[in-house]
Amino acid sequence: MDDNLNILIDLLKKHAKAESVQALVQWDQETYMPEGAGEFKSEQLAWLSALVHEMHTGEPFKKVLEKVVNLYTGDVLNSNADKEEKRLLYLIWKDYHYASVLPRSFVEDFSFLTSQSQQVWAKARANNDFKLFLPYLEKIVDMCKKQADYYGYKTTPYDALMEQYEPGVTTQQVESLFSELKSGLLELLDKIKNSNEKLDDHLLKESFDTAHQWAFGLEVIEKMGFDMTKGRQDRSAHPFTTGFHPTDVRITTRVYENDMKSAFFSTVHEAGHALYEQGLPVEHFGTPFGQAASYGIHESQSRLWENMIAKSLPFWHYFYPRLKEYFPILQKTSVEAFYKMINMVKPSLIRIDADEVTYSLHIMLRFEIEKMLINEELNVSELPDLWNAKMKEYFDLTPPDDKMGVMQDVHWSMGSIGYFPSYALGNLYAAQFLKKAVADIPGFWETIQMGEFAIFLQWLREKIHVQGRRYNPLDLVSSVTGQKLSPKPFLQYLNTKYHEIYKL
Amino acid sequence: MDDNLNILIDLLKKHAKAESVQALVQWDQETYMPEGAGEFKSEQLAWLSALVHEMHTGEPFKKVLEKVVNLYTGDVLNSNADKEEKRLLYLIWKDYHYASVLPRSFVEDFSFLTSQSQQVWAKARANNDFKLFLPYLEKIVDMCKKQADYYGYKTTPYDALMEQYEPGVTTQQVESLFSELKSGLLELLDKIKNSNEKLDDHLLKESFDTAHQWAFGLEVIEKMGFDMTKGRQDRSAHPFTTGFHPTDVRITTRVYENDMKSAFFSTVHEAGHALYEQGLPVEHFGTPFGQAASYGIHESQSRLWENMIAKSLPFWHYFYPRLKEYFPILQKTSVEAFYKMINMVKPSLIRIDADEVTYSLHIMLRFEIEKMLINEELNVSELPDLWNAKMKEYFDLTPPDDKMGVMQDVHWSMGSIGYFPSYALGNLYAAQFLKKAVADIPGFWETIQMGEFAIFLQWLREKIHVQGRRYNPLDLVSSVTGQKLSPKPFLQYLNTKYHEIYKL
Repeated sequence: MDDNLNILIDLLKKHAKAESVQALVQWDQETYMPEGAGEFKSEQLAWLSALVHEMHTGEPFKKVLEKVVNLYTGDVLNSNADKEEKRLLYLIWKDYHYASVLPRSFVEDFSFLTSQSQQVWAKARANNDFKLFLPYLEKIVDMCKKQADYYGYKTTPYDALMEQYEPGVTTQQVESLFSELKSGLLELLDKIKNSNEKLDDHLLKESFDTAHQWAFGLEVIEKMGFDMTKGRQDRSAHPFTTGFHPTDVRITTRVYENDMKSAFFSTVHEAGHALYEQGLPVEHFGTPFGQAASYGIHESQSRLWENMIAKSLPFWHYFYPRLKEYFPILQKTSVEAFYKMINMVKPSLIRIDADEVTYSLHIMLRFEIEKMLINEELNVSELPDLWNAKMKEYFDLTPPDDKMGVMQDVHWSMGSIGYFPSYALGNLYAAQFLKKAVADIPGFWETIQMGEFAIFLQWLREKIHVQGRRYNPLDLVSSVTGQKLSPKPFLQYLNTKYHEIYKL
Repeated sequence: MDDNLNILIDLLKKHAKAESVQALVQWDQETYMPEGAGEFKSEQLAWLSALVHEMHTGEPFKKVLEKVVNLYTGDVLNSNADKEEKRLLYLIWKDYHYASVLPRSFVEDFSFLTSQSQQVWAKARANNDFKLFLPYLEKIVDMCKKQADYYGYKTTPYDALMEQYEPGVTTQQVESLFSELKSGLLELLDKIKNSNEKLDDHLLKESFDTAHQWAFGLEVIEKMGFDMTKGRQDRSAHPFTTGFHPTDVRITTRVYENDMKSAFFSTVHEAGHALYEQGLPVEHFGTPFGQAASYGIHESQSRLWENMIAKSLPFWHYFYPRLKEYFPILQKTSVEAFYKMINMVKPSLIRIDADEVTYSLHIMLRFEIEKMLINEELNVSELPDLWNAKMKEYFDLTPPDDKMGVMQDVHWSMGSIGYFPSYALGNLYAAQFLKKAVADIPGFWETIQMGEFAIFLQWLREKIHVQGRRYNPLDLVSSVTGQKLSPKPFLQYLNTKYHEIYKL
């Protein structure tokens, strides 16, 4: 590598320290901050955001960057650069381009608007008053369209928005994947609805000591391989994961006494994210090679552990005896009955409560709506009616109000349009990774049933975690599995699992 | 105020945000950081220290500052400036002067040395091996002498060191105060030793549920006026207080099952610091007027609450019934007997275990030694022998080893020479403040006995907290109490209290 690249990397490592400090302030805001400190916390964060933005886009960084790449095209100036170096420089340039292409006034306006609109959304949702939120959402859609114009795109502005979360994945590709996925899922859902096997999970709504829930969750994720000397779990209103550095990865959750599933599967979900963050290559910390491949790949890791591993029968063959020690109320329930309870399929109004079969359908609905908004095929004021019509189409359900309907997610109020597809793509990635892991690891499910998670984790580390952002998500999938991304592994996985559970 | 001063204040407010972020990273290091993240945490802190130092001393700040003061003399350039403005500018200049007068290489060397020597001290102390620590302490003493030369002084280099912690207080003044204090304390101690009243506090070493200790401590400090919506308490190895901002002040402690006094009085001590931080004028946040007057004044607030209020009989008349509810083991002990237990006087080898009567003597011993080190009247290698000789002189005790003797405190390993006097001055300030408060507030001890702390807190707020750094500590004492600082109120306070307890 040439000297300028080394200087560039040193700067990036400094930026990453600043970002990790920013992340700590945000983590503190969600965990331990006294309630009266909110205003000052916003001031700290505004100062840090401006500082970090300046580090990424300011003259000192630009001056070094322009010595190694053409700032307009991203072309690497050193013709002797090898493939790896070219990829690294492309990513560094791309991040710079995305950070610097938006005018400062646009960044400030958007930040101010989304900060306001999140508060308005929370109020509008609480009061079931979409009209209150409407003018803010209209502005957000407008600004997202402008944002797409700034970023640039070939086919449709939605491509530019999605690129922030799922680099290299086009709207057309998602449409094609979702189309096949949709018919497969609806077919399976129809069979389940018509099955004579009626499941009942009321037992999981009994009283479960919250301290025991907490302890059991920690026990499980440690067994999965979450390194407690390099991470921790705290309480927050909404579960999240923050990786400050591979040696400091923190997850959060909340615990409900009358819902045993909620905290446990949230802990495992976040631990899936956290294992990825703990497994990122520490020597590349600060550079793109030390970062996660995409939001969807991140989601693949959390969903793999949460759904495909922790909602599998072999997993519970191992953990159920321990769970019964924590909760004697389960003593009379067989592991097979428990397994069915946690996998009950039931179309619901709320995305985050959805089961594995219906979850991706919630995403498709949002994807269809977001495209229409960005392509000016829909006025924001028509949103509630369209939402309800699509809920009817997908789930044969009608939201009683907008709170349970179009206003349920925080994402739009944050200005995150183009993010939702990553969730469903995460399912597809996960299933395709799992299929390959099962093929690669002899007696895969036997290792899970014996509580031997290290072999699988090692596989994920080598194939996915240590790769950082070396590959775009679709290339990573091809490279790891030898196959192009397809909805088939996910549909196969679901069909096999639910045919057995629902005796289809 | 002129425009430049406003620009200066805006910069200072930004600096304060950066410092509050640095403080959060340090707080996290002592409370929730996973153990494996230590190295990365050091990197975050090194980056932040450099950033904060640059903010305080860099060109952008200097350029604004030199428009309002003469950088060499500190003289205010605007001849129309009023008294308050002059004081503010003097303090801003002084902080700049202290931050910028040390060459960068010196700052880096000192920082590196003290970071190393703290680790060596911890090891040397654990292994009772002073020789291991010796070369580091020699270097620290050397560098502190150099530091004093950089800062400048009129009479003795020790003045320059103390100025960092207790502005405006000279070595000679401390010598004079300590001389009177010493004879008074030794006289009282002698009487106590010869008293027929033998106290026994073994009951406080029984088993006390740690969760109950925690809850009781929080209950008491909330009652004292600690605003839990603008602060919190967490666990750490050593208790400390951090004020990020008046709306976010956090204290820490540790709890021992077999020592009921330790956690409780540490919580009250830190709450005393915290009440000061919560009471600093929020509109001046970031400027010297929004900061504490000195380390000693800070210590006066913690010691006032910890010793003079929370070890008083009226305080326990109010809280003892509640304490007995938490700990039924105390049911058969009268409040008067309990009061005597928590006030037992017993010379000890360890400063932090010392009672109110002997505590200041521990400080004097250190003050005498530090002066000799800085004035080159003592080789560091002779330290252990001198320490032991002084322990004999003051307490008639001989440390069994250097671990229990000269190596007990972390301060010297941190390069903090000149800090110890602030602890004893804190006692003097506290007693003089208390005397005035008792005179100002009708039925002072009755309000305490009724658990009405708001009146006293309001008094502290008005007289001390909202003043920030408007006054140097000695001027603050004169302004609040109408009297020059004297050891008499403290000696009177102790004599009255312990004559009664020990029936002298």
